[in-house]
Amino acid sequence: MVKPQLAENVGTAARAMYNCGVTDLRLVQPREDHLTEKAIAASTGAEKVLRNAQLYESTEDAIADLNIVFATTARPRDMVKPVYHPKLAATKVLELPDGGRAGFLFGREKAGLENDDVALADAIVEVPLNPDYCSLNLAQAVLLMCYEWYQAHLSPEMESLPIRNSLPANKDVLVNFFERLEADLIETGFLRLESKRPAMIRNIRNMFERAHLTEQEVSTLHGMIKSLQRPQK
Amino acid sequence: MVKPQLAENVGTAARAMYNCGVTDLRLVQPREDHLTEKAIAASTGAEKVLRNAQLYESTEDAIADLNIVFATTARPRDMVKPVYHPKLAATKVLELPDGGRAGFLFGREKAGLENDDVALADAIVEVPLNPDYCSLNLAQAVLLMCYEWYQAHLSPEMESLPIRNSLPANKDVLVNFFERLEADLIETGFLRLESKRPAMIRNIRNMFERAHLTEQEVSTLHGMIKSLQRPQK
Repeated sequence: MVKPQLAENVGTAARAMYNCGVTDLRLVQPREDHLTEKAIAASTGAEKVLRNAQLYESTEDAIADLNIVFATTARPRDMVKPVYHPKLAATKVLELPDGGRAGFLFGREKAGLENDDVALADAIVEVPLNPDYCSLNLAQAVLLMCYEWYQAHLSPEMESLPIRNSLPANKDVLVNFFERLEADLIETGFLRLESKRPAMIRNIRNMFERAHLTEQEVSTLHGMIKSLQRPQK
Repeated sequence: MVKPQLAENVGTAARAMYNCGVTDLRLVQPREDHLTEKAIAASTGAEKVLRNAQLYESTEDAIADLNIVFATTARPRDMVKPVYHPKLAATKVLELPDGGRAGFLFGREKAGLENDDVALADAIVEVPLNPDYCSLNLAQAVLLMCYEWYQAHLSPEMESLPIRNSLPANKDVLVNFFERLEADLIETGFLRLESKRPAMIRNIRNMFERAHLTEQEVSTLHGMIKSLQRPQK
């Protein structure tokens, strides 16, 4: 962060970093001490990121050991420099050979990075946002960048289905349920038209298949049917 | 938002929504008036999102007209319900047929959504974050979800190269520069070894090609060479 104005904002940004497992915070000429009580309170549980922060006199010093540097900006600059989506920047970081180090520059809360800082970067990172209202506060900008890095880094599953204390129903359990349900529906008249029966049964089976039922849930359904069949009081 | 506690947090969340062009804010039993001065100040330029907010007595009422609903949670629930990455949830929203409406439920700042609210949702959305520190404040959670929606919605370019007031150099301009540079380097002895010359020239040309120079920049390089060739004072 280059010349951040309020230590509190450094604290909330540190929190956003730590949310994404990023801990190497570098501060160039912060206006306030980044270890004030207010800053530490703002970092909530991410105090250690603040305590590990390194201080530098210039942006050049802060990025000296880095192999690739991105400048985050909200407004277009009059520079011929590639502008990356945060996701692409995250990918570039992952593509660095072993031992490669990357950094992201964030500017002052009010005005952002100075052009001289942007000129030091390999590329600009711009977050595509509502063109009518694209101002992000420092912590929000840091969060979005670190979020993309973390997602690229982990390549997390897009979907999971937690199943606790119950196996996914095997097909035998499921078909047994289907047959019981269908027999009951024939008996009670719902499936009385024999010509339409096969199609209706397929529809019903598809509906339940789509739900990816667990064994526990199939038991529950059996119980529900049994209960529904009791004479109403 | 279900039972948000502080109006200020509703304000910062409204700001995050508007950053991503999302304006339909629904509040279920907020503890505070969402139009206090503090809340409006927290929303910065997104006051209109706050003013458009609708109030509801129950989560069921708030989602009554929606076709798909996602429950955002930070902690795993003991429920057999699919858990989506925010990006997948955003894709599902885009895949809705015309006229389809989607909503995202966010819980109280401290405790998140109640299980009864989660049970109303089609799927859970969980942001993969540092497992040692995954708590996000309300506005940050709203921002990440709306960000993914906006990115999916826009499918923005991953990279662009803004070029102002100068055309990309055509190959004639570039080759003219190469030949001038190479002639000078032969004359000054840098390329004196004729056997190594072709390979060295290829390396030099590749280096400049990689920079995707504009015409303006090629002019600048010509000027630099001319200047370097002046006798030092």
